[in-house]
Amino acid sequence: MAYLTDIEIAQQCEMKPIMEIAKKAHVDEKYVEQYGRYKAKIDPALIDETDRKPGKLILVTAITPTPAGEGKTTTTIGLADGLSRIGKDVTVALREPSLGPVFGVKGGAAGGGYAQVVPMEDINLHFTGDFHAIGAANNLLAAMLDNHIQQGNALGIDVKKITWKRCVDMNDRQLRFVVDGLGGKANGTPREDGFDITVASEIMAVFCLASSMADLKARLSRIIVAYTYDDKPVTAGDLKATGAMAALLRDALKPNLVQTLEGTPAFVHGGPFANIAHGCNSVMATRMAMRMGDYTVTEAGFGADLGAEKFLDIKCRMAGLTPDAVVVVGTVRALKMHGGLDKKQLANEDLAALERGIPNLLRHVNNIKNVYQLPCVVAINRFPTDTDAEIDFIIRKCRELGVNTVLSTVWAEGGKGGEDLAREVVRLCEEEQGNFTFSYELDATIEEKLEAVTKKIYGGAGVVLTPAAKKQAERLTALGFDKMPVCVAKTQYSFSDDPSLLGAPEGFTVTVRNLKVSAGAGFLVALTGEIMTMPGLPKSPAAERIDVDDNGKIRGLF
Amino acid sequence: MAYLTDIEIAQQCEMKPIMEIAKKAHVDEKYVEQYGRYKAKIDPALIDETDRKPGKLILVTAITPTPAGEGKTTTTIGLADGLSRIGKDVTVALREPSLGPVFGVKGGAAGGGYAQVVPMEDINLHFTGDFHAIGAANNLLAAMLDNHIQQGNALGIDVKKITWKRCVDMNDRQLRFVVDGLGGKANGTPREDGFDITVASEIMAVFCLASSMADLKARLSRIIVAYTYDDKPVTAGDLKATGAMAALLRDALKPNLVQTLEGTPAFVHGGPFANIAHGCNSVMATRMAMRMGDYTVTEAGFGADLGAEKFLDIKCRMAGLTPDAVVVVGTVRALKMHGGLDKKQLANEDLAALERGIPNLLRHVNNIKNVYQLPCVVAINRFPTDTDAEIDFIIRKCRELGVNTVLSTVWAEGGKGGEDLAREVVRLCEEEQGNFTFSYELDATIEEKLEAVTKKIYGGAGVVLTPAAKKQAERLTALGFDKMPVCVAKTQYSFSDDPSLLGAPEGFTVTVRNLKVSAGAGFLVALTGEIMTMPGLPKSPAAERIDVDDNGKIRGLF
Repeated sequence: MAYLTDIEIAQQCEMKPIMEIAKKAHVDEKYVEQYGRYKAKIDPALIDETDRKPGKLILVTAITPTPAGEGKTTTTIGLADGLSRIGKDVTVALREPSLGPVFGVKGGAAGGGYAQVVPMEDINLHFTGDFHAIGAANNLLAAMLDNHIQQGNALGIDVKKITWKRCVDMNDRQLRFVVDGLGGKANGTPREDGFDITVASEIMAVFCLASSMADLKARLSRIIVAYTYDDKPVTAGDLKATGAMAALLRDALKPNLVQTLEGTPAFVHGGPFANIAHGCNSVMATRMAMRMGDYTVTEAGFGADLGAEKFLDIKCRMAGLTPDAVVVVGTVRALKMHGGLDKKQLANEDLAALERGIPNLLRHVNNIKNVYQLPCVVAINRFPTDTDAEIDFIIRKCRELGVNTVLSTVWAEGGKGGEDLAREVVRLCEEEQGNFTFSYELDATIEEKLEAVTKKIYGGAGVVLTPAAKKQAERLTALGFDKMPVCVAKTQYSFSDDPSLLGAPEGFTVTVRNLKVSAGAGFLVALTGEIMTMPGLPKSPAAERIDVDDNGKIRGLF
Repeated sequence: MAYLTDIEIAQQCEMKPIMEIAKKAHVDEKYVEQYGRYKAKIDPALIDETDRKPGKLILVTAITPTPAGEGKTTTTIGLADGLSRIGKDVTVALREPSLGPVFGVKGGAAGGGYAQVVPMEDINLHFTGDFHAIGAANNLLAAMLDNHIQQGNALGIDVKKITWKRCVDMNDRQLRFVVDGLGGKANGTPREDGFDITVASEIMAVFCLASSMADLKARLSRIIVAYTYDDKPVTAGDLKATGAMAALLRDALKPNLVQTLEGTPAFVHGGPFANIAHGCNSVMATRMAMRMGDYTVTEAGFGADLGAEKFLDIKCRMAGLTPDAVVVVGTVRALKMHGGLDKKQLANEDLAALERGIPNLLRHVNNIKNVYQLPCVVAINRFPTDTDAEIDFIIRKCRELGVNTVLSTVWAEGGKGGEDLAREVVRLCEEEQGNFTFSYELDATIEEKLEAVTKKIYGGAGVVLTPAAKKQAERLTALGFDKMPVCVAKTQYSFSDDPSLLGAPEGFTVTVRNLKVSAGAGFLVALTGEIMTMPGLPKSPAAERIDVDDNGKIRGLF
């Protein structure tokens, strides 16, 4: 059986003009700024000016994933198209893909198979320029910081305590560790430095959590870029960079509207890392999507221990959102991996491994239902390599264990393959009542908050702070940053901080090695290990196979 | 008398919807991709598919400028609006401003006073994202180059002979000289490196000289990024980067359409440096503008010795264009400077200095009329500080000397102030016949070409190559790159390579210290001194005064 690639499927789609999609999303044309024929930015004034009340919010998250991912974005899109097919008024709220990884191993990130958002080439490349704007704002702040030092350093910035890095939306390991400011006194101050990929910039997190232009500016001004010789934080506001950064972000802040392959309106906006940041699309796009659809389907990065945790404890808390239902995506492949099957063997049928992997799924479902107290359904996202026996087995097994489980075949069938899931989601929204509860409260100490996430969500025995992290916790508390939510940067491949502990490990402790504040974003970042914030390219980068013909048709994106 | 700032004037303008401007430019809506309400990209297929024949082409250039510039862009826009007012069918073809300098000293670069292109905030900030795309293509190539070395270096690239730099569209001196690839063997190869501002990237020059997507790809593939241990050039094509770079540039390659304050269609596209590159807007935009208007007004960077020389000897030669008339912009301020008045005194009336400065103007006019053999008019661009006596004197003096001279007051009056100039330009186009001749032919040797430009255009005694440059000339000739046009990187403040030699110096030699090939762009770059390809921010950057209010209105751009 020959499958079409994602880009082939996407390019076969007869897209509707974006004005038609806007109309479908109840967006009056006065709020629409077209970016080409099939993309638009929507004026955020719409959120306040519409008569429509917010609709239901459905979060799509996943079990602990394989490196290839379990299809959260695909399921989000397919579920929305499924809801549309059963007659519901639906919008999607997704993250924008990062440009750099498109040229590495990963390929595109706009769904897959028959559940994609389009135009996929645009969305995966520059889209409407949001990430370039975020990169420019990030790098303007860096240039103003080093210029301040060059021009006399009135604020007394200690060049050994600069925390702000430059960024580029490219997988470029050569820039991870640099010494810049070389070449003599006219050319800056020699110092150790480094670049992050743009999505790792705190500006991305700020941008995604901002509720308005005024809130964006307030957050930008609070960003800490360095510390003085006497250890006082220096902010973007101190450098008078806020206004110019906000000007650079003015258009980017407007949510983007595109469509799914089946013409469902999709708000695709923002895309922070899911480890050092909270991993969800922008608050403004989510709010807009909820006003414009009776049902809004959204997603969060990595597995539910990271993505859903941050969506619920950080984003929903800051934005005052309450999801009406949560979909946990599971796959036969990932369950077999958690059952001990070697990653290279995941395409082989193995019912025993499949069964052994189920505890991973159970813990994620338990977290959603019993910690966050939200209605929940498991969607088994069928992959082409899954056998009928495996699919039948896992569905039956889950139901025996009392897990509400539905098969999803959206990758192969689009919205049609998401209808069963859609019906169950509607039932959850209409019949089940959640009692949304955070996994910790903000007034707890930093350690208490980390302890709560570790025990309640990861299922571990407790959290350990290294002596350095303990000292940082004390310092952050003294600076008044202890009442923020915590954003744990942890491997996505295990409930624990050890990527080799698959399934549902118990008795482990999580070690926090480094604690930082993202004062603009408004959360504390707890690093449990080295987190790579600048990827590299592989031996044979995807870029070598991308091309565009004389008519502008792009090939080789997948 | 209180003047409004440029942004205040621009924001008072009631812009017409871009579809209306497209219609005025005879562009069928099927070629138009809107980017917001007042910007669009136009499908280049229009150039081949339109029935319209190319119209007249008018180049606006200038005498040797003061650091503040003499108002070429302003005159270009005002002349176009003037042509429109006297009933002509007109388009403008301009460069896009660079983002970085907006935050430094310079402010905006979209004209001034009542002769601007709008929306000026958009044009000065991200516009339609072209420069971000160029930066991304540049940095993808850099990442692929370093990744190739990291992954085994099959091409045998000598890390000491890498010529390709990364870029960022920001004034950031801290990045001029860096060592990157630090941090151990997983993180690249330690080497000396540096960043340029995006407009200095060869991709910008390639982009602006490309006549089609196919030509763009051919040029991209020829870009030399490094040399091997045995001194063979390594190209972007060798790194298999061409297709992915072209994909990144696909949308950027489409010319942008905006409008002047008076509603004249303006194609604003591309913007290479005028020293290490050729300093003109894109060939594709110029061609499109010429098809869509009976008259197209365009400009080239710096004074006529640099901008017009490169426009004529490089761009027009490569694109097969012949201008119908040339406007040389002169100002009272610049002429007084050339007459020996201190730069700080330029606002003071000084008829004697004014008269002493005229030889500078005469040489530029002579070059246009007698070297390039093109019809020419001098436009005296009135500044608010000019006295009536000065204006009367310079116009009278020029006419006495047989110089065809017209007063232009477009900064204060918009198109109305450009009507006289417009009438004279129409007369030149209709009544005078040029005999366009290059200042050198391509089959001359590198030294002969440099000698020709120095003697014929600069008025110098000859060119001197340093021993290093001589060796480079031999090597470039051996590599087969000697049949290209030469792009001289020289100070814009003098006909000579010494910025302190004002007026019309004679007897000087020009010293070429460094010769390089921009194989993708298709020209040789002759450096006569250190050219700064990464600006810095001043003590009090303009960025500190830029802001955006809660409704998205930007302030402080000027």
